[in-house]
Amino acid sequence: MKIALAQLNFHIGNFESNSRKIIQTIQRAKEDGATLVVFPELAVCGYPPLDFLEFRDFIRKSLSCISSIAEYTQGIGVIAGSPSFNPVLKGKNLFNTAFFIRDGKTAGVCHKALLPNYDVFDEYRYFEPGRSFKCIECNGIKIALTICEDLWNEEDDPLYQFCPMDELIKEHPQLIINIAASPFDYQHAEKRKSILKRNALKYRLPVLYVNHVGGQTEMLFDGGSLVMNEKGEVVHQMKYFSEDYCLIDFPVKNKKPVTKKDPQKIERIHDALIMGIRDYFGKQDFKQATLGLSGGIDSAVVLALASEALGSENVFPVMMPSPYSSDHSISDSEELSINLRTKCMALPIHQPFQSYLDLLKPVFKDLPFDVTEENIQARIRSTLLMALSNKYGYILLNTSNKSELAVGYGTLYGDMCGGLSVIGDVYKTEVYELAHYINRNQKIIPENIITKPPSAELRPGQKDTDSLPPYETLDAILRLYIEMQYGPVRIAEAGFEEALVMKVLRMVNRNEHKRFQAPPILRVSPKAFGLGRRMPIVGRYLG
Amino acid sequence: MKIALAQLNFHIGNFESNSRKIIQTIQRAKEDGATLVVFPELAVCGYPPLDFLEFRDFIRKSLSCISSIAEYTQGIGVIAGSPSFNPVLKGKNLFNTAFFIRDGKTAGVCHKALLPNYDVFDEYRYFEPGRSFKCIECNGIKIALTICEDLWNEEDDPLYQFCPMDELIKEHPQLIINIAASPFDYQHAEKRKSILKRNALKYRLPVLYVNHVGGQTEMLFDGGSLVMNEKGEVVHQMKYFSEDYCLIDFPVKNKKPVTKKDPQKIERIHDALIMGIRDYFGKQDFKQATLGLSGGIDSAVVLALASEALGSENVFPVMMPSPYSSDHSISDSEELSINLRTKCMALPIHQPFQSYLDLLKPVFKDLPFDVTEENIQARIRSTLLMALSNKYGYILLNTSNKSELAVGYGTLYGDMCGGLSVIGDVYKTEVYELAHYINRNQKIIPENIITKPPSAELRPGQKDTDSLPPYETLDAILRLYIEMQYGPVRIAEAGFEEALVMKVLRMVNRNEHKRFQAPPILRVSPKAFGLGRRMPIVGRYLG
Repeated sequence: MKIALAQLNFHIGNFESNSRKIIQTIQRAKEDGATLVVFPELAVCGYPPLDFLEFRDFIRKSLSCISSIAEYTQGIGVIAGSPSFNPVLKGKNLFNTAFFIRDGKTAGVCHKALLPNYDVFDEYRYFEPGRSFKCIECNGIKIALTICEDLWNEEDDPLYQFCPMDELIKEHPQLIINIAASPFDYQHAEKRKSILKRNALKYRLPVLYVNHVGGQTEMLFDGGSLVMNEKGEVVHQMKYFSEDYCLIDFPVKNKKPVTKKDPQKIERIHDALIMGIRDYFGKQDFKQATLGLSGGIDSAVVLALASEALGSENVFPVMMPSPYSSDHSISDSEELSINLRTKCMALPIHQPFQSYLDLLKPVFKDLPFDVTEENIQARIRSTLLMALSNKYGYILLNTSNKSELAVGYGTLYGDMCGGLSVIGDVYKTEVYELAHYINRNQKIIPENIITKPPSAELRPGQKDTDSLPPYETLDAILRLYIEMQYGPVRIAEAGFEEALVMKVLRMVNRNEHKRFQAPPILRVSPKAFGLGRRMPIVGRYLG
Repeated sequence: MKIALAQLNFHIGNFESNSRKIIQTIQRAKEDGATLVVFPELAVCGYPPLDFLEFRDFIRKSLSCISSIAEYTQGIGVIAGSPSFNPVLKGKNLFNTAFFIRDGKTAGVCHKALLPNYDVFDEYRYFEPGRSFKCIECNGIKIALTICEDLWNEEDDPLYQFCPMDELIKEHPQLIINIAASPFDYQHAEKRKSILKRNALKYRLPVLYVNHVGGQTEMLFDGGSLVMNEKGEVVHQMKYFSEDYCLIDFPVKNKKPVTKKDPQKIERIHDALIMGIRDYFGKQDFKQATLGLSGGIDSAVVLALASEALGSENVFPVMMPSPYSSDHSISDSEELSINLRTKCMALPIHQPFQSYLDLLKPVFKDLPFDVTEENIQARIRSTLLMALSNKYGYILLNTSNKSELAVGYGTLYGDMCGGLSVIGDVYKTEVYELAHYINRNQKIIPENIITKPPSAELRPGQKDTDSLPPYETLDAILRLYIEMQYGPVRIAEAGFEEALVMKVLRMVNRNEHKRFQAPPILRVSPKAFGLGRRMPIVGRYLG
């Protein structure tokens, strides 16, 4: 029997476009002689629908799509996810359901039993866990149908009280199918494969895994759907970061294991960011972007990524030198723009800056130049960029990196502005790695941008290291605090000066108010600022 | 036996200050001859601790406070909440625990069994539900100790699969104690009393209820702790919106029911906002605020609230007229400032506005005046306010109302700036009610501010109704969509024109990106923007 796997890019709440995609793929699978075609978790409504799930109208629309799709299932089985109503009065009123539809009718359902409720996931907010387990049957083949997290109950990560596959295996299925909405981070592909392998080996069954692909604002889905044999070997690997479709023969016994290795960390991050930018724009019918080009590494990397994602003809960088800008900030930016073939505009901010200083002079009198005057410059720049955005419909791309966001080294309503933060989940040290990766085939980012010491250039001779430790040290401490959630003692034990550790951790905690108002950040790490990290603003942990 | 109830204002993660407060209150209760003193849910670490709960160091610090507190419990029982580790390897690694401590030792624990995971609550993110139930015993009295939501399993709101009190009642307790972190909204006091009454009547037991009080950024705790007899009558009512302590005799049979009525909706909202401002500042050691004074009703109400919360000597309003400001915007603002005895500054923005226009002229050429030039004015104002904030340490108060935030009628990085949104959960029509309430004893907000038609004054002759329906209609539609979560058909059936309903709902959905970057909003309604309402930015529900 032939089974088609459909790794598609869905649009949250866009039922019309999602069901059109699904129906077209069913037609294709029929033409290919498939007996079954498999779509991802909550395919019909897109993932994550968040609080739209609280609208009965939204659920009804999603279920009505399932009915429309059913009309196209004569002679073919279809597995597709949608929220559904829980008919029992106790518990949450929804299930996260996989529908198995055939010949116009629902022939089986699976309600997700293990509901992730950590990091970016909030499934207990909406769904009641499934508590009954029954295999589906397609052409005489018994299939253990599961949804994403249902396979993630590892022995050494004992988040859940029970294990759906332990129930399903009692019916002696011949195959595990897992439909997923499993978002990208740079470690996730390995983790996913190791989990699937564990299941294949434990239950001695092949696994068909179908994931979402595409950017959903912060959350990026990398696809990477696959077919695994009962020895835990990947025998078919679907694409990363783009839609894909494949047709496989069941049983899968004779297929050779895939030997091609997955890409390295920085390549993955690069591809994820490109997809994230592209989908943020595409799904909102935006075409053009703007950003401030400072001559530094962050804006250079964002410009390069945006040019690749949107086409360089659609990206409009702006240089906005102030009285404290260095000459090389202009010449380096111009060189970068030429390399990328973007049209770069210059709007020197001396005049508006002076007009603010004049207006405030009677108030501030002779108070010394401080962060106030630094921030005014950053805010003039954002006002100009937003003016271009308003006039021409450009989307402003934010260029803050994760290290800056962590310690609050940025101006709220200034360089922290933007519709989308492209590298807000990329530490400064990783931004350099991205720059080298971008330059892998030809010199795009000028050497001088990569080698000069980082500076905000908001006062004479300023360097980042005036107020921050070197980025290698800073990033290492931040990683232990943010990704590893170590306390200060444990971080110091890892080899850092205690006073420095406390200083950095306090900076992180005291800048929650800034991050609260940051743009959505493309998530590429296991712990990004935003949806997956929720901190009190008014708190005093660690002083 | 005498029982002391301690309704206190805790500071998240500030273990030192929280345990000092608790220990002082234990001393007082001892002096008062109390046998037992009761503190709220998660008192030791403050509520909501959010993702600090994922730090083992944070949990250890909290548990070490419980140990310190235990040293003061010779001859007195203490009930206080803290997170604790779940020793079992299956499930989440924490419990939300009520410790019963006596004579230096833990004499009983209750792990919260019903974990709220809706609106502002995320308790399934952190906690494993308690599954075993045992009464505690204090001086021969058997007490059913429960935590907040544990009593909220109503028959007609069947969110949960089981009911902790149904288990505890089997041991024949003589008293229910409920420790809570139950946040304010303007309907909450009634709901809380009705739930507690149901429990009192169902189990024929008196209820002692001890809640948090105080502002925790967005979430406001109104206190309102109480003692209820087994007939469901409130026999002692503790204060709203301030710390309180009381000593009650058990059994409570002979106490007369309280006859004083709870305050009305607008008074409650008013008092909640005052507390919210005060705690946002106090807990961060801020003293002074600034805000833009437009001559409109929103900034007038925020100025009045801030003056009451912080003292008018600590609030620095700024008038920033543009070429499109009306004369009365200045004179009305001046009158308001005089009434409130605040020192009002004027910074006309004509010069910076002109300098932006000059700088952009070669780019924009002869493109017509549009929202771009409107937004530049709003962003000049925020740049000036933030300059004052940076120079003097003022916190900028945001003055956007809920109606504007809903439909995106505001400038991101302009009038949407601020450390705290004071009235972002108050619809425009309610802002007027607040103005009347503020004027209840004397004329504070000038009549003209209340009666003139709302306008952003960003272009000649502009009125809000140029682009929005009248606020009575708008607010009614918004309430059905946001608070009631009705779909478009049902809203139209409630008596609104279908095209208008779709227009408003689309405006709400399409402005998620703006609200994503809004300041934290003091929550006073059952469904506020922010923590309790999570929507996709890139989605297309309702087109």
